[in-house]
Amino acid sequence: MFVVPKVLVNDDGSLGTPNDVQCLSIEHKLGIHASPTCVMAYGQSQGAVGYLVGEPNRGLEYMFVMMNAARLSVGLEGYAVAERAYQQALDWAGTRIQGKPPGVRQEGPAPIVHHPDVKRMLLSMKSQTEALRALTLYTAWQLDLGAQHPDELARARAQARGDLLIPVVKACSTETGIELASLGIQIHGGMGYVEETGAAQAYRDVRITTIYEGTTAIQSNDFAGRKLARDRGESMGALIADMRAELQALQIDHPAVMSARDASLAGVEELEQATHSLLQSYAQSPERALAVSVPMVRLAGYVIGGWLLTFSAAIAAHRLANGATDRDFLQGKIASARFYASQVLPQATALARVVATGADGVLDVGEAALSR
Amino acid sequence: MFVVPKVLVNDDGSLGTPNDVQCLSIEHKLGIHASPTCVMAYGQSQGAVGYLVGEPNRGLEYMFVMMNAARLSVGLEGYAVAERAYQQALDWAGTRIQGKPPGVRQEGPAPIVHHPDVKRMLLSMKSQTEALRALTLYTAWQLDLGAQHPDELARARAQARGDLLIPVVKACSTETGIELASLGIQIHGGMGYVEETGAAQAYRDVRITTIYEGTTAIQSNDFAGRKLARDRGESMGALIADMRAELQALQIDHPAVMSARDASLAGVEELEQATHSLLQSYAQSPERALAVSVPMVRLAGYVIGGWLLTFSAAIAAHRLANGATDRDFLQGKIASARFYASQVLPQATALARVVATGADGVLDVGEAALSR
Repeated sequence: MFVVPKVLVNDDGSLGTPNDVQCLSIEHKLGIHASPTCVMAYGQSQGAVGYLVGEPNRGLEYMFVMMNAARLSVGLEGYAVAERAYQQALDWAGTRIQGKPPGVRQEGPAPIVHHPDVKRMLLSMKSQTEALRALTLYTAWQLDLGAQHPDELARARAQARGDLLIPVVKACSTETGIELASLGIQIHGGMGYVEETGAAQAYRDVRITTIYEGTTAIQSNDFAGRKLARDRGESMGALIADMRAELQALQIDHPAVMSARDASLAGVEELEQATHSLLQSYAQSPERALAVSVPMVRLAGYVIGGWLLTFSAAIAAHRLANGATDRDFLQGKIASARFYASQVLPQATALARVVATGADGVLDVGEAALSR
Repeated sequence: MFVVPKVLVNDDGSLGTPNDVQCLSIEHKLGIHASPTCVMAYGQSQGAVGYLVGEPNRGLEYMFVMMNAARLSVGLEGYAVAERAYQQALDWAGTRIQGKPPGVRQEGPAPIVHHPDVKRMLLSMKSQTEALRALTLYTAWQLDLGAQHPDELARARAQARGDLLIPVVKACSTETGIELASLGIQIHGGMGYVEETGAAQAYRDVRITTIYEGTTAIQSNDFAGRKLARDRGESMGALIADMRAELQALQIDHPAVMSARDASLAGVEELEQATHSLLQSYAQSPERALAVSVPMVRLAGYVIGGWLLTFSAAIAAHRLANGATDRDFLQGKIASARFYASQVLPQATALARVVATGADGVLDVGEAALSR
């Protein structure tokens, strides 16, 4: 790794001659227009001067320290753009008057938030952004424990869990972030397609997040190979055991929360079976696992998100029962867990089946059969 | 409906004075930049002249004739953009050299098409574009039969099936079109985010298709209300009976095709159960059905697509067994059906569960609980 300044510095600290570094062109990108991407040329005429960062031959090692942090950050970016998209869409849905939604008793037209499908889309955004935020925070907490916990064994366990979850955060927050930014446009209707509302910008900006700092496939291959196969599923097994034990122990007099618990517990079973399937495939040949590694990492994200949302809802129900005053906020947490359990988590079943049986339909296909 | 010319025409046919019609502004849209969208002002000063099209008070009726055709066409647009995106992505994946994919025996780096996840994405695009094309053509054929079949009863049946499927084509080809255009970017990697490859344009252009000529929610509500509930599931029941009978009767000595048949048949069962669930919900209150009508229409699209791809694969297997020479093309048809059965159709299971149990988690939520 080198630092290559635009202008060289004299021995006395004053600015010297320009370095031989030129920007040849600026790319026309789909989004993130505030961050120019350039084609750079170094040393085309007199030769560019660069300064080595750190020690020779340790660049790749340094790069991976940066990359692990960057992956968590880009995951956070995927969530964050979706969060902004939700806030915009919610504001639009509450103020845009159009038609008379079914079941609304007031005279005349009403805001579109009362249409069942608009509410479905908003809840899809709300529940999934909350799941992704919880997943990201949980992972960051594990990494903090891995660095700072006084007990060595606890540090090692937390670090292993954080490492396990980094590709899940990166892959799932960004892939779901794209889906949610697209829903944000949909809630705006035709105005979402016009740049002035900002909905389209979220859709353009978030699209890079599944690509940079390692594509979703790279995250998924890291997850399948380094995070699941290398320790033979030990870190994942520990997480599954914790999720199962906590969900089984959860008892609260609130049917919606208990129903979300049951759905999450079923998801944990599916995740466990899929992990076994994937490890078996990997043992046969890594390719078999890599043909279904993206479905595998997304399955993990959905199930872990369901576990965290269930506990968020349980805490909210407990506080509501004890006279908390922020009732709308707390009801919202229960609404998120309930919607997620009934409309998002069913995807775990589909993905578990893909992990178990989907590899042959990829690996057996030759390049010639793909042609049009 | 009125025609409002830019320039008025004199009695002798020569061009007269400009009409009082002005374009106030051109919108800055996410895509379809070749089709300007304008804010128009009519009659701001002396009054604009318009000419009535057809008879008074029949405008809505005329509009729906236009709209039914437009919905099929926009569905076709969703498929067509995804098809273009596939062709671009396939070309890129076959020529872009990067890394050494697992299982590739050649020396040095190879085209990315050999990476299992790139192949998975390409097969997702190939199989789903073929399913959507088949669905669109099947629907158009039914509408042709509805207009031209010599037998009156056959005309009525075909018209009812065409009417049933128009919202399925519109909703599913456009929603899946967006997903596939996004995969097209992903296959291109970072270059997909740069406008010069064209991958980003597909993603921008296709995004309008779920919005104009009736959003996906409008299609889904039409599907649930006018197409399923109004005839108490009769048209859908006839389609389900046909699909089941044809799939059950299919016998071919080709394990992959028979496996796709089994998966399609399971999908038909799920579609039938979901149709019953939806009709029950609708009978309780239309809102209950409308809270899961988008999952319902997408379920229908996935299952009908699976049925059509299975028959495409069966025809291909038959031709291969009889010495056909276009073997790559025919193997590709079998590859599509097989991939679709194992990696796409599992979504039908998830969606059927959403249709059966997802409505309460939407309808019970008040607007206040959505706030951040």
